[in-house]
Amino acid sequence: MADTLPKALGFDVFGTVVDRRTSVSRQSRPFLDALGRSDIDAGQFADGWRARYAPAMKRVNEGEREFVVLDVLHRENLEDLLRENGIDPAELGEDRLEEWNRAWHRLDPWPDTVEGLTRLKSKFPIVALSNGNVAMMVAMARHGGLPWDAILGAEFARFYKLHPRAYLASAEALGLSPSELCLVAAHHSDLAAARDCGLVTAYVDRPEEHGGRPAPDLHAKQEWEWSAGSFTELADLLGCD
Amino acid sequence: MADTLPKALGFDVFGTVVDRRTSVSRQSRPFLDALGRSDIDAGQFADGWRARYAPAMKRVNEGEREFVVLDVLHRENLEDLLRENGIDPAELGEDRLEEWNRAWHRLDPWPDTVEGLTRLKSKFPIVALSNGNVAMMVAMARHGGLPWDAILGAEFARFYKLHPRAYLASAEALGLSPSELCLVAAHHSDLAAARDCGLVTAYVDRPEEHGGRPAPDLHAKQEWEWSAGSFTELADLLGCD
Repeated sequence: MADTLPKALGFDVFGTVVDRRTSVSRQSRPFLDALGRSDIDAGQFADGWRARYAPAMKRVNEGEREFVVLDVLHRENLEDLLRENGIDPAELGEDRLEEWNRAWHRLDPWPDTVEGLTRLKSKFPIVALSNGNVAMMVAMARHGGLPWDAILGAEFARFYKLHPRAYLASAEALGLSPSELCLVAAHHSDLAAARDCGLVTAYVDRPEEHGGRPAPDLHAKQEWEWSAGSFTELADLLGCD
Repeated sequence: MADTLPKALGFDVFGTVVDRRTSVSRQSRPFLDALGRSDIDAGQFADGWRARYAPAMKRVNEGEREFVVLDVLHRENLEDLLRENGIDPAELGEDRLEEWNRAWHRLDPWPDTVEGLTRLKSKFPIVALSNGNVAMMVAMARHGGLPWDAILGAEFARFYKLHPRAYLASAEALGLSPSELCLVAAHHSDLAAARDCGLVTAYVDRPEEHGGRPAPDLHAKQEWEWSAGSFTELADLLGCD
């Protein structure tokens, strides 16, 4: 545990604040059923959507294409995934595709999230430091009752994590040096990238994120400044009421 | 009154959400007294600080200098104002100058602000669409209990209002067309610039903003889509509980 408390907390959102996989899977089921594709496992469909996420962001970060928000990448990835499953996206029509894509706007918080964030907010500014765009983060916060002080991260920085600018632009916007900002995340790779930029780090364990399977980034595991099993436990560690 | 409700509300902050003049004046008084300058009227000092605001932003919007956040412009303007009053800013030292500059982080809401915003938020996403930077808006929201969904505006757009990009970038970030976003402001000039970009508009009267003197932008007065005497009255007009 670090001696000095941070001045603000930036949160990874997908998997850390909200249960991405269960929410996308549950919302994809009726769309697949309506297409007569009850044979497709909705959990695997959610995994397939997620698997296209990192390569799509990489093309932006490496300058192969201009920055576009995550809603746009998700939509492209959904259409690609549908085609892979033998479904022509045009069959669905624009409105249904958009509605399906917005499943990511309605991800449910983990059970301890709202209580934990509320306690943490009583002592620290709490900001979304996510790859999700503003419209998505606003909708998700209103859906789940997430009391963000601000929404920073990828769209603000015009770079996706794990690019250093995503972390550094967020610290600058808060008027902080990197070491005054703590990234809270369930992902070792995210925390490692933040640490490389000078941020301090808090790991929160989310064993159910991958449907019970092990996290893909265990190789990046380090000793983080703080480590907790939930947001409420993190609030305890950071001395919040 | 417009027939169609907006999908989100963007708020001007200085003067519309918070009582800029009284708060800056009250916080400047002890700094002036400590300098042995009880002869300087704190209200006039606040006016002098504000008078330097528009010309400073104009230099950014016209490309004479790169975008810098409002905290930086305020600090330069404070030093300029001190020199005009025969005070060498170096006399104060960095910490006191920064503390004085942060008076803008601690502006008090008008009496109806928090209740009105809370009611409006129950129906619409509410975002700061201000020239203030993120650090300033976060501090001010925590100081006054302003429940923003997101902080957009100048720092996000890298242009200051009345530049069209400040309005349009905020609408885009929310995933809205300009006509789906309503600017709420006490200033006709701000509302006129928003309308020129296609936004809808709500005027809220703040007769005490200029210490009881008439607003300087009455020439820009038009018939706005909504017009109210307070945020709670605006909440009534927009059908909020």
